[in-house]
Amino acid sequence: MSADLDDLTVSLDRAHVFHSWSAQGALAPLSIAGGKGCQVWDHSGRQYLDFSSQLVNTNIGHLHPKVVEAIQEQAALLPTIAPSTANLARGEAAKRIVERSPDGFGKVFFTNGGADAIENAIRMARLHTGRDKVLSTYRSYHGNTGAAVVATGDWRRLPNEFARGHVHFFGPYLYRSEFWATTPEEECARALHHLRRVIEAEGPSSIAAVLLETIPGTAGVLVPPPGYLPGVRALCDEFGILLVLDEVMAGFGRTGEWLALDAFNVDGAVVPDLITFAKGVNSGYVPVGGVIISDPVAATFDERVFPGGLTYSGHPLAAASIVATLDAMESEGIVANAKRIGQDVLGPGLRALAAKHDVIGEVRGTGVFWALELVSDRDDRTPLAAADMGRLKASLLDRGLLPFVQDNRVHVVPPCIVTDDEVDQALAIYDEALAAL
Amino acid sequence: MSADLDDLTVSLDRAHVFHSWSAQGALAPLSIAGGKGCQVWDHSGRQYLDFSSQLVNTNIGHLHPKVVEAIQEQAALLPTIAPSTANLARGEAAKRIVERSPDGFGKVFFTNGGADAIENAIRMARLHTGRDKVLSTYRSYHGNTGAAVVATGDWRRLPNEFARGHVHFFGPYLYRSEFWATTPEEECARALHHLRRVIEAEGPSSIAAVLLETIPGTAGVLVPPPGYLPGVRALCDEFGILLVLDEVMAGFGRTGEWLALDAFNVDGAVVPDLITFAKGVNSGYVPVGGVIISDPVAATFDERVFPGGLTYSGHPLAAASIVATLDAMESEGIVANAKRIGQDVLGPGLRALAAKHDVIGEVRGTGVFWALELVSDRDDRTPLAAADMGRLKASLLDRGLLPFVQDNRVHVVPPCIVTDDEVDQALAIYDEALAAL
Ligand SMILES: Cc1ncc(COP(=O)(O)O)c(C=O)c1O
Ligand SMILES: Cc1ncc(COP(=O)(O)O)c(C=O)c1O
Repeated sequence: MSADLDDLTVSLDRAHVFHSWSAQGALAPLSIAGGKGCQVWDHSGRQYLDFSSQLVNTNIGHLHPKVVEAIQEQAALLPTIAPSTANLARGEAAKRIVERSPDGFGKVFFTNGGADAIENAIRMARLHTGRDKVLSTYRSYHGNTGAAVVATGDWRRLPNEFARGHVHFFGPYLYRSEFWATTPEEECARALHHLRRVIEAEGPSSIAAVLLETIPGTAGVLVPPPGYLPGVRALCDEFGILLVLDEVMAGFGRTGEWLALDAFNVDGAVVPDLITFAKGVNSGYVPVGGVIISDPVAATFDERVFPGGLTYSGHPLAAASIVATLDAMESEGIVANAKRIGQDVLGPGLRALAAKHDVIGEVRGTGVFWALELVSDRDDRTPLAAADMGRLKASLLDRGLLPFVQDNRVHVVPPCIVTDDEVDQALAIYDEALAAL
Repeated sequence: MSADLDDLTVSLDRAHVFHSWSAQGALAPLSIAGGKGCQVWDHSGRQYLDFSSQLVNTNIGHLHPKVVEAIQEQAALLPTIAPSTANLARGEAAKRIVERSPDGFGKVFFTNGGADAIENAIRMARLHTGRDKVLSTYRSYHGNTGAAVVATGDWRRLPNEFARGHVHFFGPYLYRSEFWATTPEEECARALHHLRRVIEAEGPSSIAAVLLETIPGTAGVLVPPPGYLPGVRALCDEFGILLVLDEVMAGFGRTGEWLALDAFNVDGAVVPDLITFAKGVNSGYVPVGGVIISDPVAATFDERVFPGGLTYSGHPLAAASIVATLDAMESEGIVANAKRIGQDVLGPGLRALAAKHDVIGEVRGTGVFWALELVSDRDDRTPLAAADMGRLKASLLDRGLLPFVQDNRVHVVPPCIVTDDEVDQALAIYDEALAAL
């Protein structure tokens, strides 16, 4: 532990590392040297309670011993092998993923992360349907590559619009309704009506897929009303359109379910055609993502060549880390913990904060997937100014909490293993920082 | 070691793993359980001499002890951390990469593999120039995501043409000249004239970048004549176009140089603006790739937000494996070995095979990056039929060599650590299999 190492880390970073989604000039990145569970620390020993899960990916926490061991063992056996071979770790990972998927999903196509999972899901949907267009929401993020970034609805699409065939619509978001709705039921019905009108106006026979985050994450943890996803599924069925659910952020524990769609899939009402995943499947210990493929879509490529691929598809090191992660999540009850924490501790705790701080306009979420929407005026729902959000972020960091701050929101997204005590610590820090605002 | 494990491996694979670039119905993937150096083996103990380097990525060979150890250590320290932080392994990796790049390249943007490196290089070129079009060759492969696959010239582009702004031209390839040329000098001059005409006809002020594999790999190890890349650089300078060199396959040892461009960059004649890399930088032990950024392009994003990013950018496990790989390649003289093998052993050996077997139409390459172009008629240069290529591949496998077979070519691409003995063994196997044809 030494402050010198932090200085070296930051100076190497500033000299040679080019950062995502930023102007490079004024960056002041936090040095992180290590972590364990819900804690991370720098080389000087300064600790932070990680309520960001980094980019909402370390669902199993930092340095889970079983996952570390699996990576070490696979590294000593065979770190990499071409996708065209058969590899046991890869087959075991695929088997475990389909076991946690709805019935009728038999195969997995592995990618390196979320963006290329979306790319390949879109490719499959287009070839399966013979149609081009992909519909996705304005409030969404699907990744930074060619098609994924244009499927993305948020500002990150705008400098990157070099792909064709993408159409955007509005999803349900009662707090800032696009449909002049005042109840969840009204928001749901109107959002479905809006989607039907977009489908009709675009021409159903031109539409390959509706691509949705099961719960839009980066856009603000926008839990849809219960009827929305069943309604989208019904619309897709009516028009022969595939439903692709993007579970990159919401999947594998985050919502207190194995897949976020499980909570909506009552009596088989929300079975998608393709599911994309990354992040939680192995907590990002090794870069990986992929597409879980329903049997009819998979069958399209039994005789016909699937025109997609990548050097590291089904990477053994990633596969071994998936096997260990999913097994540990199962045997240690980690998904159940996320559910309980959300219901009994974190949800109530955040609502209590909202009752105390007028700056909290809405609390939304489930499991360990929550957002506090901050407003300077509760009645007008005016988003809190960027400068205030910056001060809040600094104040949370000062108090030893690593926050996830996005626009006018704090996303409260600890690892799924978070304890009651850690939640209490975090709630106290949010409380102090909000009071100081 | 057991045949049962191979059966389990293949049956899990066939049930649950969806494969790249293939129809899934008739696949019979080889089970691979482990490897070391230039050898891989299945669970039953059947060994293969790996003259494919998998997808031309394991430049340092399988299971290099120093890289394995670095992965194990980083896994036990901090496997993953968000890109916005500063991390020592990441900074050290970036430093080593820029140290092996031409002067004037200070920063690295890390991605998960080759395709997303291309995506981000294209993004940088477009924003730096304010222009849209990207020119690349028909004989090229740049990856499977939205822009990368449309920059790709080969058949894989055709079912995926959903990105705009891509234009293709022909590069030099004397053996199958597109320019009616009969000497390397003529091929070079005419290929440059053709590129100039395409630039003029497309409108120079609409063109952001020329994107080229330094040595087109998948398309057939098409070593360009010495004057070609300097000529392309001069054309780019004349018209204010950026030159992006894709070193994903050719870089980090494959050609017997740190970067393939080093052999062409006499007196600074071929300094590109952006360099993409993946594969050899860490032999693919952990999925990673990236863009090496020249200072003027990097400066564009000092004050302006760079609109690209990914969850695993600068992943610590990948970074640690890069540091260990580049250090081992340096201290063990692995790049020099690749050069010597190419000049003294593999090149002469393949030419001797060509003198003996009429089916070899041309031998091309450098370092450990070679192609045998197989023809049924040497005068007409008729590509050898697919069925014959299939028989040759099976015969090489039967004889214990894992080959890289592409169209009518065998790419001879062992790890950079290959020994004289292993090359002799492989040459004997190629010889027998060609004789049996
Ligand atoms: C829902 C969703 N899809 C896709 C992605 C892209 O994943 P990646 O950053 O691994 O490319 C993200 C990343 O945050 C995401 O949240
Ligand atoms: C020159 C080149 N560029 C890009 C790529 C794409 O790399 P990846 O498969 O890691 O996406 C490849 C892969 O073979 C390549 O050879």
